[in-house]
Amino acid sequence: MPYSAAVGVTQKRTPTGAAVLQADVTRAITEAVLDELAETGYGKLSMEAVARRAGVGKSALYRRWPSKQEMVMAVLAEFSLELATAPDSGTLRGDLLGILHSLREWLTHPRFSRILPDLAAEGVRNPEVAEAVRTAIGEPRRAVGATVLRRAVDRGELPADTDFEMALDLIAAPVYWRLSVRRAPAEPDYLDNLADVVLRALKGRPS
Amino acid sequence: MPYSAAVGVTQKRTPTGAAVLQADVTRAITEAVLDELAETGYGKLSMEAVARRAGVGKSALYRRWPSKQEMVMAVLAEFSLELATAPDSGTLRGDLLGILHSLREWLTHPRFSRILPDLAAEGVRNPEVAEAVRTAIGEPRRAVGATVLRRAVDRGELPADTDFEMALDLIAAPVYWRLSVRRAPAEPDYLDNLADVVLRALKGRPS
Repeated sequence: MPYSAAVGVTQKRTPTGAAVLQADVTRAITEAVLDELAETGYGKLSMEAVARRAGVGKSALYRRWPSKQEMVMAVLAEFSLELATAPDSGTLRGDLLGILHSLREWLTHPRFSRILPDLAAEGVRNPEVAEAVRTAIGEPRRAVGATVLRRAVDRGELPADTDFEMALDLIAAPVYWRLSVRRAPAEPDYLDNLADVVLRALKGRPS
Repeated sequence: MPYSAAVGVTQKRTPTGAAVLQADVTRAITEAVLDELAETGYGKLSMEAVARRAGVGKSALYRRWPSKQEMVMAVLAEFSLELATAPDSGTLRGDLLGILHSLREWLTHPRFSRILPDLAAEGVRNPEVAEAVRTAIGEPRRAVGATVLRRAVDRGELPADTDFEMALDLIAAPVYWRLSVRRAPAEPDYLDNLADVVLRALKGRPS
């Protein structure tokens, strides 16, 4: 159960001071999960350490999520949903820039910049984690990109037979590659050029 | 000292049966390092475990490399050099396809597909590792790409003011993103389309 749903249900059942406290606890746990993921990584993360950092008992965790994996993925999904609003600037270039800047913000986020490469490495060893990350983060983010592309097709900015699968890779991959793999900067100028390059790739024809 | 240099020096000094044995030992250690990296990851890799797996004493490791980091990077650099031959098919498209296929082979390699995401995660926590990976793997691979691009400029296939930095990101990023982050397939058809997309991005003009 995602944590928003857990909070919602709790608040409906007991709309009192206790319910407010519960939401606070959930928020404290969420912060503790993100801190622990950034510091020690998924593999070594323990329910004990999260509970200790959040200042709660382990039972407070298990009341919300049945396992470490479900806890981590619910917290990450919550964050991803916050970011899952498709820009709608009226042009594909404007929307692409919006996506690229939000990607940059995400990948340079003090905690997420540590969490994501760790989860990618964990996913290699643990296919269940890879699948959960795909569902919690990858798919919602790709849905945002698809919305932007679909609008561009509707406006006639992109051909109707645009290869969305390839286009979405092309938008996300260079920023991730630079920031999270090469650990090189991705300054606004770079993102600006990248938007042009992606536009050429999607709209142009080979010369 | 890279292991090839170590082997070379040893063979020059003592060109006897003992030297052949030494090269065998180096090769056994190299294999053990790759196996340990793939199985346990850089963070938990120990000189003891490598020595045990290679069937040698720890002193055999320290005779070759002063530290775990130098040992790992020497082994990885050796592998990267093997791959560092620029294709020269006569056309940019042919060379791009060559690079994309070799990238795919590298990133789906049973051991490397595990080692690289682990090193990326380690690099987040340990900037020295990030820098060493850049020197041992990133730079030689980018030099290969730059050679291919320079030839295309010389042939008039690409404009003289081609942004190599961006072009190299564009070539490598989608394959890494697909195979190592999204864990989606990158079939020959995909690589074929990607070569066209990259060509359009580098050669075309926005429509």
